Amino acid sequence: MSKTDPGNFFEDFQLGQRLVHATPRTVTAGDVALYTALYGPRFSLFSSDEFARASGLAAAPIDPLVAFHIVFGKTVPDISLNAVANLGYAEGRFLAPVFPGDTLTAASDVIGLKENSNGKTGVVYVRTTGTNQRGEAVLSYVRWVMVRKRDPAAVVADQSVPDLAKAVAPSDLVAPPGLDFSVYNYALAGAPHAFEDYEIGEKIDHVDGMAVEEAEHQMATRLWQNTAKVHFNQFERAKDPSGRRLVYGGVVISTAKALSFNGLQNAGLILGINGGRHVAPFFAGATVFAWSQVLDKADLGSVGALRLRLVATKDKPCADFPDKDGEGVYDPAVILDFDYWAAVPKRG
Amino acid sequence: MSKTDPGNFFEDFQLGQRLVHATPRTVTAGDVALYTALYGPRFSLFSSDEFARASGLAAAPIDPLVAFHIVFGKTVPDISLNAVANLGYAEGRFLAPVFPGDTLTAASDVIGLKENSNGKTGVVYVRTTGTNQRGEAVLSYVRWVMVRKRDPAAVVADQSVPDLAKAVAPSDLVAPPGLDFSVYNYALAGAPHAFEDYEIGEKIDHVDGMAVEEAEHQMATRLWQNTAKVHFNQFERAKDPSGRRLVYGGVVISTAKALSFNGLQNAGLILGINGGRHVAPFFAGATVFAWSQVLDKADLGSVGALRLRLVATKDKPCADFPDKDGEGVYDPAVILDFDYWAAVPKRG
Amino acid sequence: MSKTDPGNFFEDFQLGQRLVHATPRTVTAGDVALYTALYGPRFSLFSSDEFARASGLAAAPIDPLVAFHIVFGKTVPDISLNAVANLGYAEGRFLAPVFPGDTLTAASDVIGLKENSNGKTGVVYVRTTGTNQRGEAVLSYVRWVMVRKRDPAAVVADQSVPDLAKAVAPSDLVAPPGLDFSVYNYALAGAPHAFEDYEIGEKIDHVDGMAVEEAEHQMATRLWQNTAKVHFNQFERAKDPSGRRLVYGGVVISTAKALSFNGLQNAGLILGINGGRHVAPFFAGATVFAWSQVLDKADLGSVGALRLRLVATKDKPCADFPDKDGEGVYDPAVILDFDYWAAVPKRG
Repeated sequence: MSKTDPGNFFEDFQLGQRLVHATPRTVTAGDVALYTALYGPRFSLFSSDEFARASGLAAAPIDPLVAFHIVFGKTVPDISLNAVANLGYAEGRFLAPVFPGDTLTAASDVIGLKENSNGKTGVVYVRTTGTNQRGEAVLSYVRWVMVRKRDPAAVVADQSVPDLAKAVAPSDLVAPPGLDFSVYNYALAGAPHAFEDYEIGEKIDHVDGMAVEEAEHQMATRLWQNTAKVHFNQFERAKDPSGRRLVYGGVVISTAKALSFNGLQNAGLILGINGGRHVAPFFAGATVFAWSQVLDKADLGSVGALRLRLVATKDKPCADFPDKDGEGVYDPAVILDFDYWAAVPKRG
Repeated sequence: MSKTDPGNFFEDFQLGQRLVHATPRTVTAGDVALYTALYGPRFSLFSSDEFARASGLAAAPIDPLVAFHIVFGKTVPDISLNAVANLGYAEGRFLAPVFPGDTLTAASDVIGLKENSNGKTGVVYVRTTGTNQRGEAVLSYVRWVMVRKRDPAAVVADQSVPDLAKAVAPSDLVAPPGLDFSVYNYALAGAPHAFEDYEIGEKIDHVDGMAVEEAEHQMATRLWQNTAKVHFNQFERAKDPSGRRLVYGGVVISTAKALSFNGLQNAGLILGINGGRHVAPFFAGATVFAWSQVLDKADLGSVGALRLRLVATKDKPCADFPDKDGEGVYDPAVILDFDYWAAVPKRG
Repeated sequence: MSKTDPGNFFEDFQLGQRLVHATPRTVTAGDVALYTALYGPRFSLFSSDEFARASGLAAAPIDPLVAFHIVFGKTVPDISLNAVANLGYAEGRFLAPVFPGDTLTAASDVIGLKENSNGKTGVVYVRTTGTNQRGEAVLSYVRWVMVRKRDPAAVVADQSVPDLAKAVAPSDLVAPPGLDFSVYNYALAGAPHAFEDYEIGEKIDHVDGMAVEEAEHQMATRLWQNTAKVHFNQFERAKDPSGRRLVYGGVVISTAKALSFNGLQNAGLILGINGGRHVAPFFAGATVFAWSQVLDKADLGSVGALRLRLVATKDKPCADFPDKDGEGVYDPAVILDFDYWAAVPKRG
């Protein structure tokens, strides 16, 4: 039917095109409570208005991953409704804190197009920006997805692949205006570890495991108005070899991030996303475990920043840090390899 | 026990009786977030305070279905605790928008009573009104249910069946005061279709499918303090031929309504309920699909109104519009046939 | 890893020690909505700002059990991460109402230590206090848990068992400041029963049954940032004889309390917790039923107080009040025996 949105196919995208995504979304305390119920995060900055005020903010901001999920969800109908695979993220920057009451909109610029040699699919690169009601960008990130062509014969003349940074440069990270961890209450935050206590290369097993149920990932994904069929249409998914609804990759990111509290209690505030790969599909019923590695450190002045690699597994505890081997082949239990920058208090 | 509420039986009702229902309920942003998580609606007017303000309202009102569910839930202990079946709705009108912070109460007037020939049950007709904290009616609707008699020998002398309108007249529809779609942002709303673009008779397949889990329908139903046993008491339901908890019909309505975004992006605001039938019981685990048909159109001046028929199925996509046949026998996949008026922006 | 919290073992506790628990938590309307969705409570005082104002309060306070769960959740990482069993509660007092917007913190004083004769475990007694952002205590209770020793050879020299009251004395109960039930609206509250209508010894079957799903208890428990592994780590639990995640005992308390509305409609406000025992473990999939007995009554002046025993069962309706026998052996269906004081309006 003409009034039903079929989504865009590869040949519908053009280099330089700007897509304004539907459904502006006012963030509320209800979203925050649901995020807590769905993942159990314990980072004080997002949990307590008082803690946030003592850290120089007006109130507790939402977890940057909530802003990411909201903005990502809006892009689905326009970018990835006909996607075969979500291939990667890069150059993610959180540019302004988001508070309950703020309204977010999203738009994406097509920055790369590359048809695959089979002529049936192509890779679409977009830079997506989330904007608040004052017109301020709150986050920006690049995502690339493999999208089906509607018509294999269609010609996409203008193609190019963007140069993307391997990691966000520390000088491009933006701490929330006013953020001040100089009187940081380590006891309330749950651990004494500061910027100075983390070493590059250090690995941390987050120990705890979290099972994910069908109802939970559906609620988590609908909350962000992400309507990708693979997460919800069990009738259709029954025909897939897995026979299962696929869990939205963002559910795995948020589950692993919440688990990372146990060892990264003071590194809750994500400042940038360097990259991310959903190494294997995840289905409800399994238990998520996670470990982290410190990849880099940067002194941002008022706060420190840790570049962290967050690896999540399904049904495999992480005491021995399941990873990829020398050939880049992942342990079959690994489902996520996520690379980000987080703010931490400095002791000195 | 005398302090436990046994609910009303058919002979407990009297024509002209007014029932004041228990548990006033303050609506909050938490309810809105849960509604989003449970159904994934994407209508901008309910999602964004900014969009609502641009439409002449003070903030984003709650989806009228939320007000309906809250008011409906309150009536259950008094009206339908001993019901055999929920038979129909008519003359539903949304009379004032409801915003987070408003407190709703509900009361019902008994407007019809008709004992069944078997002497064991009777049909009770009530007109239920939801009222806010300023004493303003926010919605009103008629519902009729088949209720058991406590004592088959009981005599209900005063009986009558009310005359009910087949549809709410356009002149009886009430748009929210101040609603102004003259600067409607179609891009943000998700589709360019205005009042002028819909034709009477037109059918729209909403394409997407949504699985419903036990945890989801229980949460959805408890949220409205609807405590009908069939939705929750699995121990008792195990003795039923289905062996399953019955999903509250309102869950099907809200699921189908959220799916209808894909094709009716600008028709989110329900103004009236003409009728509704839960054609078949629905159980968790199945996937809901939906299609709509434009039954009528009315120009209300500031906005247009579409009279829409929303048909939902279980485990059957709706590309071929599963329906009832010439004899009125429904396709066995159909679970809901719902008739309502929605506001849409006019282009001209 | 040194940055991962291993929790405290028996020999880590010292008499007189104070533990400040992590993660302050601002309570919001989102928490209230989730509590409603998870349990379906219908007590007007917590449901309606208008009803609460008519009762002398500034707005609807949160259900005292919500405050209890939040504070309890914070204690888990420090007190019961290595617990074998949660043995009991005593001397619970709700000292000030909590409203959305308040921020709660928690601290515990070690008031008793008693090593078990096997040398492998010991019982830890703590008095936990929840405090709001103004430094006011909002609740206080004693809990004792059996905790593993890390090293069986470790010596805990200083041991003692505290004297605990069998019940909170009525004179120690604190009604919320300003609480005034003199114009109590019994119709809106759902039942006409006042303090005078309840008799000591009276038993009430709450009739209704509520099934609990895995997704529901996980969400309910994470919402309070309670991360005890037994509730979430299905991979690990699969090795347990039950093969199942254990439902947090607080879920059973809140489910039974919500069911108790049917018969105790006006006794929603808990003032004190005299004791509580999780008689048997509870797993998702079963249906909870409940009954109550009036153990005592006290006239607090402005309001009455009922001392109530709340007994919950799994998969067994409570028309015949399943209980313990003369030897103290419980009916195998009983899962909870909870003893508390609740405020009720007085007629006179």
